Amino acid sequence: MEISSLRVNGQRLKTTLEEMARIGGTPGGGVHRLALSDEDRHARDLFLKWLREINLEVVVDEMGNIFGKRLGKNPNLPPVLSGSHLDTQPKGGRFDGILGVMGVLEVLRTLQENRVETERTVMIVNWTNEEGTRFTPAMLGSGVWAGVLDRDWAYCRTDILGKKFGEELERIGYKGKQPAKRGPVHAYFEFHIEQGPILEKIGKTIGIPKGILGISWYDIFVEGKANQAGPTPMEVRNDALCAAAEMILKANELPARMGGNMVSTVGEIHNFPNSRNIIPGQVRFTLDVRSWDHDLMGRATEEIRKDFLGISEKRGCPVRMEEVWRIRPTVFDPDLVRKVGEAANQLGYFPHPMVSGAGHDAALVSQVCPTAMIFVPSIGGRSHVEVEDTRWEDCEAGANVLLHSILQSAGC
Amino acid sequence: MEISSLRVNGQRLKTTLEEMARIGGTPGGGVHRLALSDEDRHARDLFLKWLREINLEVVVDEMGNIFGKRLGKNPNLPPVLSGSHLDTQPKGGRFDGILGVMGVLEVLRTLQENRVETERTVMIVNWTNEEGTRFTPAMLGSGVWAGVLDRDWAYCRTDILGKKFGEELERIGYKGKQPAKRGPVHAYFEFHIEQGPILEKIGKTIGIPKGILGISWYDIFVEGKANQAGPTPMEVRNDALCAAAEMILKANELPARMGGNMVSTVGEIHNFPNSRNIIPGQVRFTLDVRSWDHDLMGRATEEIRKDFLGISEKRGCPVRMEEVWRIRPTVFDPDLVRKVGEAANQLGYFPHPMVSGAGHDAALVSQVCPTAMIFVPSIGGRSHVEVEDTRWEDCEAGANVLLHSILQSAGC
Repeated sequence: MEISSLRVNGQRLKTTLEEMARIGGTPGGGVHRLALSDEDRHARDLFLKWLREINLEVVVDEMGNIFGKRLGKNPNLPPVLSGSHLDTQPKGGRFDGILGVMGVLEVLRTLQENRVETERTVMIVNWTNEEGTRFTPAMLGSGVWAGVLDRDWAYCRTDILGKKFGEELERIGYKGKQPAKRGPVHAYFEFHIEQGPILEKIGKTIGIPKGILGISWYDIFVEGKANQAGPTPMEVRNDALCAAAEMILKANELPARMGGNMVSTVGEIHNFPNSRNIIPGQVRFTLDVRSWDHDLMGRATEEIRKDFLGISEKRGCPVRMEEVWRIRPTVFDPDLVRKVGEAANQLGYFPHPMVSGAGHDAALVSQVCPTAMIFVPSIGGRSHVEVEDTRWEDCEAGANVLLHSILQSAGC
Repeated sequence: MEISSLRVNGQRLKTTLEEMARIGGTPGGGVHRLALSDEDRHARDLFLKWLREINLEVVVDEMGNIFGKRLGKNPNLPPVLSGSHLDTQPKGGRFDGILGVMGVLEVLRTLQENRVETERTVMIVNWTNEEGTRFTPAMLGSGVWAGVLDRDWAYCRTDILGKKFGEELERIGYKGKQPAKRGPVHAYFEFHIEQGPILEKIGKTIGIPKGILGISWYDIFVEGKANQAGPTPMEVRNDALCAAAEMILKANELPARMGGNMVSTVGEIHNFPNSRNIIPGQVRFTLDVRSWDHDLMGRATEEIRKDFLGISEKRGCPVRMEEVWRIRPTVFDPDLVRKVGEAANQLGYFPHPMVSGAGHDAALVSQVCPTAMIFVPSIGGRSHVEVEDTRWEDCEAGANVLLHSILQSAGC
């Protein structure tokens, strides 16, 4: 058969995704499978079973990253790597990350059943703790592998119950022996749902990001004075929640004010003592600012800091703003991005060039080797929620673009 | 000895309050003693011991309200009743409610050791679940006793863990046999800390409220659309927390807008899914509006409802506003209020006429019999917090006003 007419099996991809979605499946149709939970362990067990069914050589590294190798004709050449993650948000969706892992699995199954030999070894990967909702920061597995984060520091990350990453990794039986360390890689592809509304809105099946927005994460602490709601006149109050409310609205207006490609979100808020008849004495909230322009992001931070201080002074509520995480915008390899576009073109799609608003393991891997991503539409732009959905034909289309991108890179 | 020169023992009152404060005492110097908890049980046990030491006839009713009777010369006359509550807010203070119960105890000890006989029986009371933070609504014990709330309905109130009021009352051994039912009462006095900053600000020791502000409690539910923070452009968002933030600021401005005696507080907020990188999809918050003017409160509700609907429409976030509790302003018995003022005057104080911003059991009891209250200053106006404090000499002064108010009413 002509290599150019090779296609994945869309029905098999669907069945595989559906079977994986049952592990940690929620009544609302989503998946709740936090990193290093029992559900994560079961998902990994099933994943390993599937890798072994197609005779891949399996390696688990010290961070629990799982690699499956399909040897090429020339195994000394740096391999082509592709994957994503099997962990999910709390009550998250069935596609985020998972499609990227199951998509490569489908590609490898297709190569296997068609006895396609590649020059280079092709490797599938499941990165540990991409979501970062149980253990912060996100992308811990790929971060250590890429040499950006320290392994022992990662082991000491704790969840909300105080459980350590390293101990939980051991508990679920996925603390491997192989060093979590970058090796030579020829190219990395990550296939993912868009998680935004753009592709659906413009009626495109395939999106090809040129990179990922930079992200800054802040924790903001506002101090007020807790007091009984009834007998405390309005004019003597220092209401931490009112101060926070003004700050939240300022943060929401920030992108319009700064212009340029930027989003800004307050996703999390904790109010103390959080009692109906007590004036809030303390509020902690988070701020997530993203932009394709690193300098603009820096200027935005200074602007919002000034705004917060002004509100703080006006309301007599001291404020503290701490940066907890920052990642510069990621620029993918232009040559590899172009090649993915060509593969999509040859399959009859008119791919949409774009920027990824969400962070991905690809951001870390791009520091190691040429990297590109493939996006398919999210229905209603919804993600990180149980109703997250993508049409099966779009999943299949994306997997075919992945197949031919891998074949082009691996050579055959 | 002349009855007019009778005084309480301030040192003993202090010691008693300090001993009671150890039950559920917090490292921050406050008290955490939620209604029907083990701490509440221990406080009640100690209270009973103290009542029996001065030979009071003790009665526990079906709601766990504890009464101690000191019989008068004419026990057929309706008694004089006084008390407050021993339960506290979560990490609350040592004085709120407790001073009112320990104050009457000190009055009764003083009568006992001076062998003062009164015409009428004098009764002390500890009302169950005044705070309402474990079981809503507040003032459950006095509410059922006053015939405003139904006993079996009260028994079915559940806490956040689903435990029933009735079962918890039984568990701690304070479900009595006597019906929780109002009887004839000649007068009710409640001695309490102000919980506001006014008395301290004007340098007065004694405040005498003419009544209690009316209270409306609302739950507000805002629906947005949860979505991934990165890839969702600002202009397509329906951010429930931003809508709530605008509403919180509107609620904060309400008293200034309506004029008149009013306070308005958002004390509690719950944000879902409350994750750093997810646009908030749902927010629930509370609103507490209080005023001395019932009609003004009604008009304020209509105004704020219109504001909320406007914000809801602008941001595409449907809103629902539910009234969960409403109590009309309480007007105390003017004659009894005047008599408390006279008692304070005779003791050399210049009492400050005022209005109570906080709800009290006195609001319910005033529906049964002539009722008045006595306030002493809160340092810094702070209450419902661990640092809640009142000077010991002010506690003693208030107890002396209570002593002479009771003596005047009970006759001797």
